[in-house]
Amino acid sequence: MDATEFRRRGKEMVDLIADYLENIEQRPVYPNVEPGYLRSLIPQEAPEEPDTYEDVVKDIERVIMPGVTHWHSPYFYAYFPTASSFPAMLADMLSGAIGCIGFSWAASPACTELETVMMDWLGKMLKLPEEFIAGTHGQGGGVIQGTASEATLVALLAARSRTVRIILANDPQRPETDITSKLVAYASDQAHCSVERAGMIGGVRMKKIPTKQSNKYAVHGETFLKMIQEDKAAGLIPFYLCATLGTTPSCAFDRITELGPICNAEQIWMHIDAAYAGSSFICPEFRPLLNGIEFADSFNFNPHKWLLVNFDLNEESHWQIPLGRRFRSLKMWFVFRMYGLKGLQDYIRKHVELAKEFETLVRADPRFEISADVILALVCFRLKGSNEMNEVLLKRINNGKKIHLVPCQLSGQFVLRFAICARTTESRHVREAWRIISQLAEEVMQELPH
Amino acid sequence: MDATEFRRRGKEMVDLIADYLENIEQRPVYPNVEPGYLRSLIPQEAPEEPDTYEDVVKDIERVIMPGVTHWHSPYFYAYFPTASSFPAMLADMLSGAIGCIGFSWAASPACTELETVMMDWLGKMLKLPEEFIAGTHGQGGGVIQGTASEATLVALLAARSRTVRIILANDPQRPETDITSKLVAYASDQAHCSVERAGMIGGVRMKKIPTKQSNKYAVHGETFLKMIQEDKAAGLIPFYLCATLGTTPSCAFDRITELGPICNAEQIWMHIDAAYAGSSFICPEFRPLLNGIEFADSFNFNPHKWLLVNFDLNEESHWQIPLGRRFRSLKMWFVFRMYGLKGLQDYIRKHVELAKEFETLVRADPRFEISADVILALVCFRLKGSNEMNEVLLKRINNGKKIHLVPCQLSGQFVLRFAICARTTESRHVREAWRIISQLAEEVMQELPH
Repeated sequence: MDATEFRRRGKEMVDLIADYLENIEQRPVYPNVEPGYLRSLIPQEAPEEPDTYEDVVKDIERVIMPGVTHWHSPYFYAYFPTASSFPAMLADMLSGAIGCIGFSWAASPACTELETVMMDWLGKMLKLPEEFIAGTHGQGGGVIQGTASEATLVALLAARSRTVRIILANDPQRPETDITSKLVAYASDQAHCSVERAGMIGGVRMKKIPTKQSNKYAVHGETFLKMIQEDKAAGLIPFYLCATLGTTPSCAFDRITELGPICNAEQIWMHIDAAYAGSSFICPEFRPLLNGIEFADSFNFNPHKWLLVNFDLNEESHWQIPLGRRFRSLKMWFVFRMYGLKGLQDYIRKHVELAKEFETLVRADPRFEISADVILALVCFRLKGSNEMNEVLLKRINNGKKIHLVPCQLSGQFVLRFAICARTTESRHVREAWRIISQLAEEVMQELPH
Repeated sequence: MDATEFRRRGKEMVDLIADYLENIEQRPVYPNVEPGYLRSLIPQEAPEEPDTYEDVVKDIERVIMPGVTHWHSPYFYAYFPTASSFPAMLADMLSGAIGCIGFSWAASPACTELETVMMDWLGKMLKLPEEFIAGTHGQGGGVIQGTASEATLVALLAARSRTVRIILANDPQRPETDITSKLVAYASDQAHCSVERAGMIGGVRMKKIPTKQSNKYAVHGETFLKMIQEDKAAGLIPFYLCATLGTTPSCAFDRITELGPICNAEQIWMHIDAAYAGSSFICPEFRPLLNGIEFADSFNFNPHKWLLVNFDLNEESHWQIPLGRRFRSLKMWFVFRMYGLKGLQDYIRKHVELAKEFETLVRADPRFEISADVILALVCFRLKGSNEMNEVLLKRINNGKKIHLVPCQLSGQFVLRFAICARTTESRHVREAWRIISQLAEEVMQELPH
C-alpha cells in the first residue's frame, strides 16, 4: 500500500470509525461468544501472498466485532471508564505517522519536550504543589507511564532505592540484602491488585491495611501508625505506602492528610494512586479530595480513564520501565486545547451528575440499598437480601447484553457497581439502564426466596 | 468535536500524514533545536476555553515538526529501525476507535484472542519450536509486551520465581531472602542497557560476560561455563542468562547452541533477546541464526523494529508488567495480511542488500575499515586512524542534517553505525549517504593530522 492508496483507505477508515461510534448503542454491549471463538474464524498461519484490503476490512465485522466488549457504548457501566475522544484519535494518527521512539532527547526532541510541558499543564490543572511542576523549580516533573500498574511499581522501586541509600549512609557495612529482606510496603485492603503485584516484582513484603464500612473503606492514620509501630518493633523497615484516592471497588479515599505526616516523619515514601478519581481534581469542588498531596513523594492518575485522552496515558513522577516511548503527549495537547479546561470540567461534572441521578433512582426503590457513599461517578448498590440474589441479578443483567456492569465485594457483601463510563452516556441511557435493572430485580425476587 | 466534524478532520489528517510521508526526504532528518526549545512556543497553561482546530493544526508545523527527528526519512541511519507501514496505521486507527482495555478475556474477548493467534502466526513464521505455539500443545504461547525492556524484565522475574521455587522444594526452611541475595544473572557486555536495568529492578546481581573482537563480540559457552563455575564455588546461585541475537553495537550473535545446553543442565533460565535481528528469521536463509532456540525458556523480538508493525509491539512469552492493554494485535493482523509472508521477506532482504551495497562502498575506499561482520542490515565502519578523527567525522555528518547516524564503541574504538532503517530507503539514498560521508572524510583528513 502506497501513500496514494493510504489516502483512500485512510478516509474510508475515518468513515468506518465514525459509523461505528455513531451507531454503537445499537450493538449488544457485551459479546455473545465463548472462549476460543476466534481461532476457527481465521487461518492457522499468515498468508504467503498478500490478502486484499477489501478482505481485511470485511473481517472486521466477521471476526473482530462479534468479540468486542464495547467500552464506548453509552450502556457500558463496568469497571471504570476508558477515555475516547475525536481529538485524541486525530492526535494518535499523527503520532503514528511521526512514529518516533522517544528514548532520549536527541531521538526526538519534540517528543520529550511536549511531554514535559503537557505534564506541567496537567499538574497546574490539578493545582499540584510547585515541586511537582518541572517548569518552576526544576526538581520534580511528570512523566507519562503506560499504565497505573507501572506507575505504582516505579514509585515502589524508587522508594526501595531511597531507603537502602539512607540506611547505608548511616551503616555502610550493612549488607544490602539484609536491608531489602526487612523492607515492608503497605496499601489498603481495597487497593488495586496491581499494587500487591508491584511488591512481588520488587521483591519486598507488602502488607494490607484493613478498612471497614464504618470508616467508609478508607485507610486512617491511626490504623497505619499502629501497624508500622508493630512492624518496627519486630525489626522490619516500613518504607512505602501506596495510598489510594478513589479505590476500584467503591471509590473510597484514604485519609492522606493523616497518613502523609506519619510517612514524612518516618521517612516512608508516600505514593498516591488516584487512577480514576484524579481527573476530577481539575474541578475546584473536587480538589479538596486531593488535600494532603503536599506530603506525597509521588502521585499518579490516569487521564486515559476520565480525561478524554485515549489509553495509554498515565501521569506520574520519576522514571519508567520501558525504554522506548511513543509520542503520547500529542494526545494531551490536542485534547486539552480542543476542550479547554472548562470543557473538561463540564465533562467530569456531567458524569458525576448522571451518577447522582442513578443514585436517586436506587434510593427511591425500597428493594435496593446504596453500599458506599457516591462521591464521583460510581454507584455501589445492591438488592437488600442475600448475596446469591444479587449474583443472580447481575447475571441476568449481563446476559441481557443491553447494559454491562461488574460486581465488587464490600464487607463480605456482593455489590453491583454502576460506573458512568462513556462520553456519550446521557440521562436517557441511565434511566433505561435502571428500567432494565428494576425489571430484572422483580423477576429475580419472585423466583428466589428472600 | 462530534462525529460529523471528525469525518472531515480525520480525512484532512489522512492527507496531512500522506503529505508528510511522501515529502519526508525534503526535511532535515535531524532537528536544529536546542534543549528547552518548545516551552516558549506554547502557553504555560492549558486554555480555559477551547482553541480552534485550525490553530492546533497550524502548530504542528510551528511547534512540533522543528523538533522531530524523522525516523522514517530514507536518510535516517541511526539506532535501529522503527517500523512504519500504512496498513499498521490503519489498524491503529481502528484500535483507537474500539478503545478497549484488554486486561482480561471478558474485558474484550477479541483483543485477547486475536493476540494469541497472531503470536502463533508470528511463531510459525519464525519456525519456533512447538512449545512456543499456543495453538498446539497449549503450554507456551506469546504475548505482546510494550518494549524489549519489559520483556527482559518479565523473563528475569519469571526466572527468579522459578529458581526460588525449585530451591525451596528441596530446602523448605531456607529463608527466601537468603536465596534471592545469592542469585546471579548474566548477559553479554554487548547487551542492551535495559538488561542491566532489569537486574536492578528485580533486585538481583547482574554480571557482564566479556566478549572480544576475535570472537566477533559473541558470548561463547566456554567463557560462560567458567564464570558460573566460579560463582557457584563462591556460594552464588546462577539463575538467568539473557543471550542476545543481534547486539545493539554491532549485531553480534551469542552462541546459543553452546550456551543453551549449559543453561539446561544447570537449571539456568535462558532468555533470548533478538530485538532487532528477530524479524530476519522469517527468511529461511537467516533462520539458522536462531538455531539453539530449542534450549530457550523465553524469546523476545520487536516486530516494531523491522517487521513493518508500528511501535509498540514486542513478542514475548509469559506475562507482563502493565495490566491494561491496547488492542495491539490488530496491527499485526493488518500487516501480515496486506504484505503476506513473501512481502515481509522481500522487505527484510532488500534492507540486507542495501547494507551490503554500503559495505561494498566502504570496503572499496582504502581510508576506511569495516569494524564487524555485516550479517543483517547494520554496517559498523570507521576511518582508519584515531578515535578523535572519527568523532569529528560523525559530528560533521550529523551537523549537516542531511543524514543521521549514531556511534558505538567496539574494543575501545569509536565506530560509526550505518543501519538501514526506513521503509522507503533505496539504493540512491545509500549512495548519496556515502557521497556525503566520503566527502566529509576528505575534509576531516585534510584538517586533522593522522
